Amino acid sequence: MTEQPFAKGHGAGNDFLVLPDPDGQLHLTGADVTALCHRRTGIGADGLLRAVPTARIQEAAELAQQAHWFMDYRNADGTLGAMCGNGIRVLARHLVDTSLAAPGRLTIATRAGLRTVHVPADPYKDIRVDMGRPALPGPDTLTVTAGGRSWPAVHVDVGNPHAVAFVDDLAHPGTLGTPPAVTPAAAYPHGVTVEFVHRLTPHHLELRVHERGVGETSACGTGACAAVTAHTRPTRDAVSGTYRVDVPGGTLHVIAHDDGTLQLVGPARIIATGTLTLPEQDEHRANYPV
Amino acid sequence: MTEQPFAKGHGAGNDFLVLPDPDGQLHLTGADVTALCHRRTGIGADGLLRAVPTARIQEAAELAQQAHWFMDYRNADGTLGAMCGNGIRVLARHLVDTSLAAPGRLTIATRAGLRTVHVPADPYKDIRVDMGRPALPGPDTLTVTAGGRSWPAVHVDVGNPHAVAFVDDLAHPGTLGTPPAVTPAAAYPHGVTVEFVHRLTPHHLELRVHERGVGETSACGTGACAAVTAHTRPTRDAVSGTYRVDVPGGTLHVIAHDDGTLQLVGPARIIATGTLTLPEQDEHRANYPV
Repeated sequence: MTEQPFAKGHGAGNDFLVLPDPDGQLHLTGADVTALCHRRTGIGADGLLRAVPTARIQEAAELAQQAHWFMDYRNADGTLGAMCGNGIRVLARHLVDTSLAAPGRLTIATRAGLRTVHVPADPYKDIRVDMGRPALPGPDTLTVTAGGRSWPAVHVDVGNPHAVAFVDDLAHPGTLGTPPAVTPAAAYPHGVTVEFVHRLTPHHLELRVHERGVGETSACGTGACAAVTAHTRPTRDAVSGTYRVDVPGGTLHVIAHDDGTLQLVGPARIIATGTLTLPEQDEHRANYPV
Repeated sequence: MTEQPFAKGHGAGNDFLVLPDPDGQLHLTGADVTALCHRRTGIGADGLLRAVPTARIQEAAELAQQAHWFMDYRNADGTLGAMCGNGIRVLARHLVDTSLAAPGRLTIATRAGLRTVHVPADPYKDIRVDMGRPALPGPDTLTVTAGGRSWPAVHVDVGNPHAVAFVDDLAHPGTLGTPPAVTPAAAYPHGVTVEFVHRLTPHHLELRVHERGVGETSACGTGACAAVTAHTRPTRDAVSGTYRVDVPGGTLHVIAHDDGTLQLVGPARIIATGTLTLPEQDEHRANYPV
């Protein structure tokens, strides 16, 4: 039986399994990830974060000098994810709590490039993440449909693709039991995460999010950044400042700098650590005799 | 920070947190249980099983000679539960895996009295539980309503109260997003778990279950026993045998003996062990500074 160390943590209710893999020996299939993230027969999580040395990841090996750790992020459905603003805080918290990294400034490699995280030694303090400069690739004709209504939307790329729609009432998109329709579909060949954003004040937004490969979640860090980017787009010459973004699971803050870069600020809690049995090991021996 | 050992396990997809409390020092409020069972900000589970020496439980102390361990079972909403047929298997598996009990015949005290469990040393073998002799307290006029339909139902008490309705199609009760209505309500002053049962053959049933205090679950061990009891009631003189009961999360078997007692047979898997931070400890220090 293979015993794998793990942590479970969350950032504003967006929850993750963290699997440290210091030797780069852990090969997880999509089915493994789905099994581990299953809410009843696994530990359960919105996604899985494998912490692996960057030097072990062929596509990112040239970043190993700048970032010892690579965030191998998978959605709960087993698909690869490039970047996750809540996940990277939880991963950083775990690395510092387990002395795999020192508190302070920590650079982590992701499939969306390098990300720098500022991790207080105190596990109850918020973590700040440099999110880079979001892109606005267009088209300007984007439409999101949910709950029988449609809204114009803004395409924002924060290392992963988002469609941001501004709504008058967060109840209007309905239950989000199925993914919102986004047109033109060609704008998102690999799917899209959709934010429904309600402006409370110029520096205070609230949102709901339907994450690609997951469903509606309690919080989405890149989604908060995408929302602030879309919110400030009409006045891009005067957007610096701190924006509060309320998500169903808590509160995030986005700091916009004069150079167009963003920082995401939010909590990360590790709620349990331990060991788990990798699912394939279990399946091999499973039997249900009477 | 208080670190509490835990295990997470499931029986046919009905999942539990197990908290060993060998010194009887763990005082959990309903809010603690709800926090620990929360699917995103806790570990997540349908219920919590505290393993505590029977001698430490005032109401059960006289059973301590027969059963060293008491199963303090709480539903995910924090309410007390008397007995749980899937949970007791998971608890027994944990006690044996951690050498808190020996494999073989193990008697566990519950709020519904003593239960004897037969635990193989091999964690992949099914566990058999003596469930006692269910009662049929009536009334005969019970009705269950869900998904816009109503069915006559049978009141079965297996240490906890059930209403069993036989349906032609398991889809008919609908999504079970809200508790089914049961009349007369006076039959169940403390609420009720409802089974919708479809007869496939005389010895093969399938069911869905809405558990009191939880919602629809993947499996319910006492519910499988209640279903077999209601199924065999018309011919109580010739009911002994083995009944297969398919539940959404897997397969259980119920062995009916000539004396009217039942045994429940099913899997129990421990999928992770570790330590968690008790929620009240976390709350005291929580802060969300920018």
